[in-house]
Amino acid sequence: MSGETLQVYFLGTAGALPTPYRNPSCIMVRRGSETLLFDCGEGAQQQMMRAKTGFTVDAVFISHWHADHYLGLLGLVQTMSFMGRKDPLMIYGPKWIFEFVEHVENISKTKLGYRIIPSELKHGSVVPFNGYTIRAFSSKHGMPGLGYILFEDERPGRFDREHAISLGIKPGPLFGRLQRGQTITIERDGEEVLIKPSDVMGESRPGRKLIYTGDTRPDCNKWREWGEEADILIHDATYDDAESVRAKEVFHSTAGEAGSIATRINAQRLALVHISSRYTNMTSHIQDAEKQFKGDIIVPEDLDMIEIPYRS
Amino acid sequence: MSGETLQVYFLGTAGALPTPYRNPSCIMVRRGSETLLFDCGEGAQQQMMRAKTGFTVDAVFISHWHADHYLGLLGLVQTMSFMGRKDPLMIYGPKWIFEFVEHVENISKTKLGYRIIPSELKHGSVVPFNGYTIRAFSSKHGMPGLGYILFEDERPGRFDREHAISLGIKPGPLFGRLQRGQTITIERDGEEVLIKPSDVMGESRPGRKLIYTGDTRPDCNKWREWGEEADILIHDATYDDAESVRAKEVFHSTAGEAGSIATRINAQRLALVHISSRYTNMTSHIQDAEKQFKGDIIVPEDLDMIEIPYRS
Repeated sequence: MSGETLQVYFLGTAGALPTPYRNPSCIMVRRGSETLLFDCGEGAQQQMMRAKTGFTVDAVFISHWHADHYLGLLGLVQTMSFMGRKDPLMIYGPKWIFEFVEHVENISKTKLGYRIIPSELKHGSVVPFNGYTIRAFSSKHGMPGLGYILFEDERPGRFDREHAISLGIKPGPLFGRLQRGQTITIERDGEEVLIKPSDVMGESRPGRKLIYTGDTRPDCNKWREWGEEADILIHDATYDDAESVRAKEVFHSTAGEAGSIATRINAQRLALVHISSRYTNMTSHIQDAEKQFKGDIIVPEDLDMIEIPYRS
Repeated sequence: MSGETLQVYFLGTAGALPTPYRNPSCIMVRRGSETLLFDCGEGAQQQMMRAKTGFTVDAVFISHWHADHYLGLLGLVQTMSFMGRKDPLMIYGPKWIFEFVEHVENISKTKLGYRIIPSELKHGSVVPFNGYTIRAFSSKHGMPGLGYILFEDERPGRFDREHAISLGIKPGPLFGRLQRGQTITIERDGEEVLIKPSDVMGESRPGRKLIYTGDTRPDCNKWREWGEEADILIHDATYDDAESVRAKEVFHSTAGEAGSIATRINAQRLALVHISSRYTNMTSHIQDAEKQFKGDIIVPEDLDMIEIPYRS
């Protein structure tokens, strides 16, 4: 199967308080050779060292302005500079992103060797990348906040080699042209015949879709349509269902609530993150999520990495 | 031996770049029930969790304004607030401390539940604590910076119990008064006799002394007198002696240079810290320091704790 790898590194899966084993929020997504960070809690740079990911981050997306989601940027930008980075760094986030980047620059007496470019996103904003987009949606956390959807462009349908040969096309460069979407002409029985890509290619296939909610109450009303059929939903699951009252009070979700969102959008897989430091094992989280969602459920540990395969 | 425990937790021993095993600079000193932090690099709060020290920090001393020495404060102050701290937190440091604390407060949208009180120190400044003082001295790091000396008050001499009895004093409350420095009167052979503490107490004994240099070139000219006979010198040893040119260029010290300072002030013990990420073992550091200093030499790993005993 040709295509790009899509990997998720869970660099920080803790709730507001880190633990000796879980760092504050930081999810790294690698697609092909591009690297994005979703949130960047304290210690992110050391987690990147531990996971051996390197520091070539192309863009950072911050979900909201609680300190456990962004303090790691302050050390990371210094280290990138120390290591000779020259490329500008894009940092996207909700309102206050401009002030935040000013603070990041002013809290250090060392001038960075590259530029940080802040960009404010709103519900519905789309950031294009090479072969995919990131779309922001409003989270529900008692303060302005965003979740993010990575959505790959459609992939061309499968090339039907046998059928192409039966139409009289010789295997070779013409196959490549058709696969790249070009119409070709061949000679058949002394006549010129036009062959369109659709004559030999199946239907185009949807790209992969990854969702990171950031901290939020369970509510996909504003983004369900964009999130449908996600390959992976990475959802706030600060608490188990026994703490559902508390979860509501502090604008977080329980594992069961995360499961119900996964079901509503018909996700393939659910990853529970932002786990409160009060939990020492994940049994109740898994059980609560399983009651609501029949797909694959994981509660990643810090430094876990998973690959998101193409479905077809 | 009565007295207070004096413990040093090496929470962060890395140079400018952390490694998977060494965090940026952070030294915790515990004397009795009081806790001081000297520098507070990124991830300090997690190191405190790992070392099980708790978060009841009484004061923080920052050596200078390079980010690897202070970024951990931003998360730590949030966590302290989250955990219900009400006591004000004193943060001492060189010039820019007021601006720094403003940045710490402004980079978070969450109001702390307690006050941070910044205080600017200069070469020679003395901060009194209960039973000891912290004195600041100028470091030599190409920017304004301070090292710190913790110096305990003198301890009273030993009480000579046998001698006291031979003078006619009855064991009991009078012993305690003499030990607390009070003159007493007893009746002997029908006469009132005055007994001074010095009649029954040996000479007062010096308190313990701990020095943390922060990042610096090796140079104790400005503070040798204050630092003499230190029980422990915690000194910048970013490089081994093979990198002495580099050390000079970037205003750091080699292990051998740290050793020569330990010898000049006649320290008891030398702890080498701020180790560059280029070193994977400490053999050359130890060898280089041993050439210059005949006392005890250690290169602590993160989370190591040592006790500083009384000498007599």
